[in-house]
Amino acid sequence: MGWPGKKFANPLILGIFADDFAFLSQNYEYMSLLVVGTVAFDSIETPFGKAERIIGGSGTFISLAASYFAPSVNLVAVVGEDFPPEKIEMFKAHGIQTEGLQIKEGENSFFWAGKYHLDLNTRDTLATELNVLADFDPVIPASYQNADFLLLGNLVPKIQQTVIERLQQRPKLIMMDTMNFWISSALDELRAVLKMVDLLSVNDEEARQLTGEYSLVKAAKAILKMGPRYVIIKKGEHGAMLFYEDQIFYAPALPLEDVFDPTGAGDTFAGGFMGYLAQSGDISFENMKRAIIYGSALASFCVEKFGTEALEYLLPSTIENRVSEFVDLVQFEIQLD
Amino acid sequence: MGWPGKKFANPLILGIFADDFAFLSQNYEYMSLLVVGTVAFDSIETPFGKAERIIGGSGTFISLAASYFAPSVNLVAVVGEDFPPEKIEMFKAHGIQTEGLQIKEGENSFFWAGKYHLDLNTRDTLATELNVLADFDPVIPASYQNADFLLLGNLVPKIQQTVIERLQQRPKLIMMDTMNFWISSALDELRAVLKMVDLLSVNDEEARQLTGEYSLVKAAKAILKMGPRYVIIKKGEHGAMLFYEDQIFYAPALPLEDVFDPTGAGDTFAGGFMGYLAQSGDISFENMKRAIIYGSALASFCVEKFGTEALEYLLPSTIENRVSEFVDLVQFEIQLD
Repeated sequence: MGWPGKKFANPLILGIFADDFAFLSQNYEYMSLLVVGTVAFDSIETPFGKAERIIGGSGTFISLAASYFAPSVNLVAVVGEDFPPEKIEMFKAHGIQTEGLQIKEGENSFFWAGKYHLDLNTRDTLATELNVLADFDPVIPASYQNADFLLLGNLVPKIQQTVIERLQQRPKLIMMDTMNFWISSALDELRAVLKMVDLLSVNDEEARQLTGEYSLVKAAKAILKMGPRYVIIKKGEHGAMLFYEDQIFYAPALPLEDVFDPTGAGDTFAGGFMGYLAQSGDISFENMKRAIIYGSALASFCVEKFGTEALEYLLPSTIENRVSEFVDLVQFEIQLD
Repeated sequence: MGWPGKKFANPLILGIFADDFAFLSQNYEYMSLLVVGTVAFDSIETPFGKAERIIGGSGTFISLAASYFAPSVNLVAVVGEDFPPEKIEMFKAHGIQTEGLQIKEGENSFFWAGKYHLDLNTRDTLATELNVLADFDPVIPASYQNADFLLLGNLVPKIQQTVIERLQQRPKLIMMDTMNFWISSALDELRAVLKMVDLLSVNDEEARQLTGEYSLVKAAKAILKMGPRYVIIKKGEHGAMLFYEDQIFYAPALPLEDVFDPTGAGDTFAGGFMGYLAQSGDISFENMKRAIIYGSALASFCVEKFGTEALEYLLPSTIENRVSEFVDLVQFEIQLD
């Protein structure tokens, strides 16, 4: 049962109706999404510009994207005391619960610096400072328990597993993301978490690395034998594929004139995807297709500006227009006998 | 006005009804497709095997693919006396007119040898022997005049231009293909032909090379200013995009477990595309979308076997099932307000 009043709701606008929100939350069974990931600083250089120490991290992009759909987004992450309080206020304005966002005094937030190549599909990591992430212990507040959906952003696999183990009740759907670094450095731990989740999202290279299969169809089939019932393979500007049993759904990415910064696009996609599922409460394959389109739409905004800039202020009509562009992009009519 | 009786017709089956065919052709206004391209020998090495001196060439793949849809396919090409007569018979069995296929006594057919890398998206050319192609003069038989559609396969731009100049009447739609070699070695001649055609099909790298634009959206817009009203950008395993005015249609390629040999996939796509348009006689953008799907379906067969093997014997039901897989792959339902 979804929450009918929040289709494409903009949390900034919703804030005005905080009393209505509280009222509604008592009267509707609505779906909560638990998000675990990094909240961090990024320094990014692309062929089109530079941005120094802007906020980023998987938990940030996921939560912001999901906030446009999910009735309730509960964030678990850790930052240092260098993290700007106004950005935490921005999360709250989006309706994101931050009780599970630990702030470590006297420590610094996770920091990543990278430089993208001209094709924007490849990048060099210039710096990685774990800081607070080094001994992150993901505490789940009592108010976050009984989450309907769980999205494990890219993190140490062991921490992803700890989160699942600390939930009193298994969510309806657990999605996890990971990256090449964990596939090469923590494969056993990664495989252990894979057995506990419903959906893995990886990019094409990670799918190949994880399975040793070059064909993405074969790679997806191999992953489906490792635990998850669903696999999403992200192909950047070439779109994303969802695999479930013998079915495949393929959504192209929106062709854009300018891509400024791909950072966070995959997390934004995942957040939009799970946010849409949490909004509707429907995890059928047909609804997952729609969720892929909404996730892709959010990701298409993300890459048009640096960092989270494009995701902080989206109007419901802006999202709806973008989804409409996707429909025009891929839909056709064929009468088969 | 299309020819209603030939939906997905298999020419090998149609041969049985040759009398009916002759009867129908007198009673329906049906669309003819003129194909100009190479008919050649290829030696191909892929990570999955080798094939020596099998038939190939743009004219071959285009004609075979188009023959499954187009009521009439008229081939203009040149071969040497080394070309196997049984392969010319195979063309005829597909309903392909070969009056314009010149056979040069004492000469050898065009020969290309290449080796694909593991990703199958890149390849090294090991040998190119022009032979009969060196002084190819494309003669258009009188029976080929008044073609409704013209598909100029990859060839020296000057020869492509000559073909257009030798037509007494301009076809409804002229599509041309080209390759990186001509963009770097014969750009002026290529630009001259571009001004004369309606539709250019190139792959992503060629689009970038031709325009200097990395973004494919910008590249397509730049090409639309060079002459063609339509641009198709082929992205191999990532599908194909059709650009027309401000509209974009994006069809993914069918995800396949095994791709044995990508040779001819682009030509097969083009042949299926134009064959479908010729069958229906409808060049609306909506129908071009369908044509892209049919072209993609034919290309997905092409890459499953070496050379033309998969294209020589396709049943109508096999094609229809493959198109149905495309529909399942990309279709979704979203209700927008």
